[in-house]
Amino acid sequence: MLLLTEGRLGVFSSKTAAAILRFRGHDVAGIIDSTTAKRDVREFVPFAPRVPIFASVADAAACRPDSLYIGVAPVGGALPETMRRHVVDALMSGLHVVSGLHNFLGDDEQLAAPAKASGAVIHDVRRPPTEQIVASKLAAQCRCRRVLTVGTDCNVGKMFAALRLRDAVRERGIDGRFAATGQTGIMIEGWGTAIDAVVSDFAAGAAEQLVTRCADSQLCIVEGQGSLSHPGFSAVTLALLHGVCPHALVLVHHLGRATFSAPPRHALPNIGALIAAYEATAALVHPTRVVGIAVNSHGVDAAAAREERAALEQQFALPTCDLAVDDPGPMVEAIMQR
Amino acid sequence: MLLLTEGRLGVFSSKTAAAILRFRGHDVAGIIDSTTAKRDVREFVPFAPRVPIFASVADAAACRPDSLYIGVAPVGGALPETMRRHVVDALMSGLHVVSGLHNFLGDDEQLAAPAKASGAVIHDVRRPPTEQIVASKLAAQCRCRRVLTVGTDCNVGKMFAALRLRDAVRERGIDGRFAATGQTGIMIEGWGTAIDAVVSDFAAGAAEQLVTRCADSQLCIVEGQGSLSHPGFSAVTLALLHGVCPHALVLVHHLGRATFSAPPRHALPNIGALIAAYEATAALVHPTRVVGIAVNSHGVDAAAAREERAALEQQFALPTCDLAVDDPGPMVEAIMQR
Repeated sequence: MLLLTEGRLGVFSSKTAAAILRFRGHDVAGIIDSTTAKRDVREFVPFAPRVPIFASVADAAACRPDSLYIGVAPVGGALPETMRRHVVDALMSGLHVVSGLHNFLGDDEQLAAPAKASGAVIHDVRRPPTEQIVASKLAAQCRCRRVLTVGTDCNVGKMFAALRLRDAVRERGIDGRFAATGQTGIMIEGWGTAIDAVVSDFAAGAAEQLVTRCADSQLCIVEGQGSLSHPGFSAVTLALLHGVCPHALVLVHHLGRATFSAPPRHALPNIGALIAAYEATAALVHPTRVVGIAVNSHGVDAAAAREERAALEQQFALPTCDLAVDDPGPMVEAIMQR
Repeated sequence: MLLLTEGRLGVFSSKTAAAILRFRGHDVAGIIDSTTAKRDVREFVPFAPRVPIFASVADAAACRPDSLYIGVAPVGGALPETMRRHVVDALMSGLHVVSGLHNFLGDDEQLAAPAKASGAVIHDVRRPPTEQIVASKLAAQCRCRRVLTVGTDCNVGKMFAALRLRDAVRERGIDGRFAATGQTGIMIEGWGTAIDAVVSDFAAGAAEQLVTRCADSQLCIVEGQGSLSHPGFSAVTLALLHGVCPHALVLVHHLGRATFSAPPRHALPNIGALIAAYEATAALVHPTRVVGIAVNSHGVDAAAAREERAALEQQFALPTCDLAVDDPGPMVEAIMQR
């Protein structure tokens, strides 16, 4: 695949591309970005494999790519105009285009003609499933163990934690699957449903369907969304909680964060109260427990992070670790025991 | 308006028509139903005003109607084929058509031509608002008092309770508004949003918008949806709970109901636990209390209903009444005091 980042290559400015480079780097043939062509990708994304940066889709032809992934998720959800020519070039040369943008590229009339001419397909990964299902606790009948990552806020690292845990259980010989619920996760894993794009009546049903697709595995690790205590996210969070019927929850927290990242940016709830709320609300449908706390130390002073993490571990007596650096062993054990 | 019930006139078989006859009977010029034409509407809907039943839209012309309301909400959400000719007749003669069907009539190609020819408009009341808003607790800044009806299950009478309470407060000189969140409520009130039809990311935002539209009133009574403890409904319920930021909740319960009406039809939760769950989950965003219990005695043996109602009143020490028959005074006081 090629990753399109035109003018935005960076860990945060092209978050989608960065996540794909981290978790699916072996599938990336190169970056398309005329503003940084020929430079070292690691100047911009330190953890990336050393893939080339090309100025155009034509320049990347020697890599024999079969698809172009849109590597950004801009506010507003539209395709940045500077990226359009690369998308047209890709479609004209027969590359499939994969997009997590809120505005569906498949509905963009300017892109329909080049796609039709070459036979290339546009995949809008946020497009909801056509089958609309009302949840009926089917997930609880699946024999796989189910884990859901939940957060103190949005954008704390719930997808990251789920993917790290999936990798950690696989290293231990457990058949763990990752069920993606957001566009970046879907682009990494190749399947999933953007739950926040599903009509609210069917959101929990869509979550349930993800689990039933993993029913024959030992463990299904579902990527969480939002937070139960923010009015803008809580309906999506609860659709997952009640659709997935998890055996265990892993709470993800960005150390040092004290207020929500979205308006009205009010104070984050007390973590003990939030754990109790997740457990009590889940139990209305299926009992579960928070079995570990995954902390995200990104951008936090190391000493302060150590202190806050130790305090959390002591207060809640749960495995508490930064899955970017720490041994995930205790958390894997907690997940598999419950 | 005319109400279309073709072959289904009845309190349950044409629930939408029955609700409009109950709450908006003075606007109904007649019923369109060739299978019961010229009979007395009260044979089928005992509480209806005595409006005529016509065999066709043409027969009703003398009433000078300006619109035809689809009076049913069939499973599957499609227009029953026996109704299609009446809808075409209505549109051809310039009557606007108002529909709460899940399948939008405005997208039905067979109906587009007659509508275009006469200039008649098709209103699909379940069509979500074009503006997509992420909730940010704006409702809590509105100066109006906010009440939300919540339920032990779906289809227990949350719309009915909200409308009865609105009428009761108005009789007491309070400027109370009804905010509709489902298709029948919207058809009765003339505005509102079917929250379960909104994409889950924006469902709470849509609820918030309903409240801000009532901000200059004394009291906004929001129609609840679903139940917090059923996986198929809870996301919509929470979108309302966190979007509306209610000062007070009224719990609605159908006496004698022991299991959920939707699969997997598991047992209803203990009512005390459910009250605690509603209050605790709401409080993650805005504190509230259940201030009364509205019981629905429909189809229940009178003695058993009296007993169960008295037991609820004693257990929770809250005003507990059947708003179809009892004095709503104590509940109105409880709502306005909190």
